[in-house]
Amino acid sequence: MHAPFIRSSADETEAAFYDAVSRSDIETLMALWAEDEEIVCIHPGSSRLVGHATIRASFEAIFERGTVLIRPVQLHVCRHVMTEVHSIIEEVQRTAEMTPDIHILCTNVYIKTPRGWRITLHHASVAPGAAPSELFRVSMLH
Amino acid sequence: MHAPFIRSSADETEAAFYDAVSRSDIETLMALWAEDEEIVCIHPGSSRLVGHATIRASFEAIFERGTVLIRPVQLHVCRHVMTEVHSIIEEVQRTAEMTPDIHILCTNVYIKTPRGWRITLHHASVAPGAAPSELFRVSMLH
Repeated sequence: MHAPFIRSSADETEAAFYDAVSRSDIETLMALWAEDEEIVCIHPGSSRLVGHATIRASFEAIFERGTVLIRPVQLHVCRHVMTEVHSIIEEVQRTAEMTPDIHILCTNVYIKTPRGWRITLHHASVAPGAAPSELFRVSMLH
Repeated sequence: MHAPFIRSSADETEAAFYDAVSRSDIETLMALWAEDEEIVCIHPGSSRLVGHATIRASFEAIFERGTVLIRPVQLHVCRHVMTEVHSIIEEVQRTAEMTPDIHILCTNVYIKTPRGWRITLHHASVAPGAAPSELFRVSMLH
């Protein structure tokens, strides 16, 4: 085990999350979560998972099934002092056997901890149709 | 238009949200959201909606189809100074024509505003099976 990087913004943590997912890098991925057993993860069409061990096992099972081909687009952000809520549309790269017309909607919540910005909640779900072509939007609430 | 109540906690706002939904009370419901055009709402199996007008229209369409029979259970909370993230399992009351074995997973994000605690994001999605019988959990992260 090496010491995890300190991520100095939620955006950096989020970029590292999607990078780790695309490379099936479970160690880097799990080091991005808050050191708290109350972290929550919801994969599309699945039940709620709580805690490091359960969430780790779920990503291990996903990675065993092959490379995850998703690309985050159309970020929508609410920034607060210690918390950021990101609403993301994930484009799913199509493979031959996949249903073509879906996209994934994802809510990621980040908190500022003494060890940098960490993920505290990831909620992903399937929406029908191709990803809509909204403009990229970032808002500052506070 | 009457002045909206000031809700002094996210829990109070959440209780008012589910109460307004159960009574199809669109005015009370919409007064619970932050006064910001960047509010986000995701209904189960639907696309992302942003802004008051769009979200209002979506709930009006839902209410026109009849009473919404959901009951929030198994709250899982991350409390911060100005923000709270609630992960909720919603039990769906069965009707004859409904698929029996689903439950709804919901992420609600609340922010503290000068006009009390308001909803800034509601993300609901369908999960397979009946609602699991976890214990009720509330955590304090900060």
